[in-house]
Amino acid sequence: MTRAFQAKKLDEAIALALARVEPISETETLPTTDSCSRVLAEDILCPEDVPGFARSAMDGYAVRASETHGASRERPVLLKIIGSVEMGQDPRTLPAVHAGEACEIPTGGPLPDGADAVVMLEETERQNDQLVRLFAEVTPGTHVLSADSDFRRGELVFKAGHKLRAVDIGALLAMGILSVTVYRRVRVGLISTGSELVEAEQPIRPGQVRQINSHILRHLLESQGAQAISLGIVPDDREKLRATVQRAVRESDLVLLSGGSSVGARDWTLELLQELGEVLVHGLQIKPGKPTIFAVVDTKPVIGLPGNPVSCVLVFEKFVRPVLARRSGLRVLLPAHRLASAQLTQTVPSALGREDFVAIRLRLDESFGRLYAEPVLGHSNNISTLARADGILHVPSELEEIPEGTHVWVELL
Amino acid sequence: MTRAFQAKKLDEAIALALARVEPISETETLPTTDSCSRVLAEDILCPEDVPGFARSAMDGYAVRASETHGASRERPVLLKIIGSVEMGQDPRTLPAVHAGEACEIPTGGPLPDGADAVVMLEETERQNDQLVRLFAEVTPGTHVLSADSDFRRGELVFKAGHKLRAVDIGALLAMGILSVTVYRRVRVGLISTGSELVEAEQPIRPGQVRQINSHILRHLLESQGAQAISLGIVPDDREKLRATVQRAVRESDLVLLSGGSSVGARDWTLELLQELGEVLVHGLQIKPGKPTIFAVVDTKPVIGLPGNPVSCVLVFEKFVRPVLARRSGLRVLLPAHRLASAQLTQTVPSALGREDFVAIRLRLDESFGRLYAEPVLGHSNNISTLARADGILHVPSELEEIPEGTHVWVELL
Repeated sequence: MTRAFQAKKLDEAIALALARVEPISETETLPTTDSCSRVLAEDILCPEDVPGFARSAMDGYAVRASETHGASRERPVLLKIIGSVEMGQDPRTLPAVHAGEACEIPTGGPLPDGADAVVMLEETERQNDQLVRLFAEVTPGTHVLSADSDFRRGELVFKAGHKLRAVDIGALLAMGILSVTVYRRVRVGLISTGSELVEAEQPIRPGQVRQINSHILRHLLESQGAQAISLGIVPDDREKLRATVQRAVRESDLVLLSGGSSVGARDWTLELLQELGEVLVHGLQIKPGKPTIFAVVDTKPVIGLPGNPVSCVLVFEKFVRPVLARRSGLRVLLPAHRLASAQLTQTVPSALGREDFVAIRLRLDESFGRLYAEPVLGHSNNISTLARADGILHVPSELEEIPEGTHVWVELL
Repeated sequence: MTRAFQAKKLDEAIALALARVEPISETETLPTTDSCSRVLAEDILCPEDVPGFARSAMDGYAVRASETHGASRERPVLLKIIGSVEMGQDPRTLPAVHAGEACEIPTGGPLPDGADAVVMLEETERQNDQLVRLFAEVTPGTHVLSADSDFRRGELVFKAGHKLRAVDIGALLAMGILSVTVYRRVRVGLISTGSELVEAEQPIRPGQVRQINSHILRHLLESQGAQAISLGIVPDDREKLRATVQRAVRESDLVLLSGGSSVGARDWTLELLQELGEVLVHGLQIKPGKPTIFAVVDTKPVIGLPGNPVSCVLVFEKFVRPVLARRSGLRVLLPAHRLASAQLTQTVPSALGREDFVAIRLRLDESFGRLYAEPVLGHSNNISTLARADGILHVPSELEEIPEGTHVWVELL
């Protein structure tokens, strides 16, 4: 009854999964200031020109450019000072600049009517309170930022599917957009399986292990803007697992099962997902992380993660993250990581045809200011392997080893 | 009265600042599950061996290694099956394994008394319900994870000053550590200066500009685990600025002033900080971001950021971030960034002796799967420059340009 699966390359598995994952459809409208890290569910068109008035890019004098024709150090042009622009002043309250006139203006100050250019302070000299000498010729627009220099009315600023960053909150507020419609947070159901597991706050006796994967996953999910729903620990019991998976599929948008490290439990999970839905991936050509399952149950993605914590975290980072991004409504997932460059202190062996991920501790040699990458020798059963590591080194499937001394990029945890 | 300052190299300015910044001293004790991204204020010693019992690393049979001497496919060793270990079973309830005996065991199952090794399933064959043939010789400890294989009682697992990551929460819970003492969040006072500024939710008229920097800074600070305290907008008025800076220094651990783009306001900020405390840096040899001030007032760091949003964000990322990390109690700040590798679509000019930071839009060529880096041509006065960008390209001070076609690392916003 168990269909035979072949372990898939990571990229191939991600493509297969993404082809079956839809963005969630529900949205919510939030104050712009509360929408950082959320995914836009609407295109944002700029409602007005920003800043909405022409302003000076320099401290200097607002003039009519035509008046400065031929001005130089040797042949300055003399203009009458008709006033001084204050920061924030309504330009409609300023006197217009006519032929033969100049108005003092600070950087960011609104350009008075009549003026079409600014001569920077360094190119001027005041003759007295009423007259200024200009040493440079300017053309219309010199040192002037137009009324739509920041954003133009009607411009498409952000597309739906864009994840709002801190600077984007600034951009939205600059346009006067005080609320936005975003996808609601993706709800991710977390199930831990294994008769050996107890909740971390419970007393423990020999033979039992504290359940930690769902706590780690919760923090990783929250850092991605998702909401974790814990469905607790399910012992190695087929009917309980079935009921919990069905409940998770009903109550969440994406389900992560972790554990089932014994052969029996692994098989049950696979059989159960085949029975409840469709299994698309069983096995990844990566180490650690091979025993990964991707299934779709009632249109919801269900991912079976390896039970040991190192593999669980690795598969989350490499496989769950793109699936979650797509489900969250993200249009583009940039191939970017938090990286540090470091030099390998020992050769890292690998196997051809398999992507390896190796835990790395970084050591800073303070006297040389150089960063060294030391492989952490630890079993992937052990959370200590990650606790002792700063990051992960990727060994591509085409390499048999990365030699000692190589400068590598380490992806930080 | 204004002391002459020379613009400093970024690295030099950071070193000068860090020499004067102390970690905050106040701590708080939190449930471990609420302490992700917080900075430990205590060393963490492991209180007990983890997992606390010897367990199998494989599905197979627990045996006395000495019994397997000489076993091979040709000359299997026959042992009596005395039982089967269940996941989570208390090893004290298991029958001891004596000479001539084997006990079935799953991956993660507790090793019964007497057994000192595991023969993996693939190296065995069951003769009948009571007897198993072993095809491989094992030595004591083979496929066994010891009681302290994950963490050893008394081991120093994390040092004070370590920022807790998701995997570290898992490690703490695995050790049964349910609460930790962390530094309290750093409170950062935010002051925006400029008579042209109005709060974003207020009506605006020509000449005025919506205040956005403190909103951007708030989100950047929160992503670093700090708490932002907004002290509002101060018009270009010396006495109001003085009172607000004094209040900010009293109420927060670090003060960020942004704005004062007019010459007058810039000078006031400098003079005021010289009067209230000590100015250590005035001017950075970077573009954008030159008009940056670092001062210490009543032992608190006060940083004057440029008013235009691009420079403000840049100086936050490059200069404020390490200062904030030190103030937060962080012991080590890894030189890591979220990076994407891309190919430059046009030459980026720069100036020798100055570090340039250029806004970059990334474009994915879907047919070639290649990422291109396009410089965003925008004024640093304009938040749109960052809204249109995906990241920032760093041009070191030794370079006059980075040529078109170069593969560069882009630091994502």
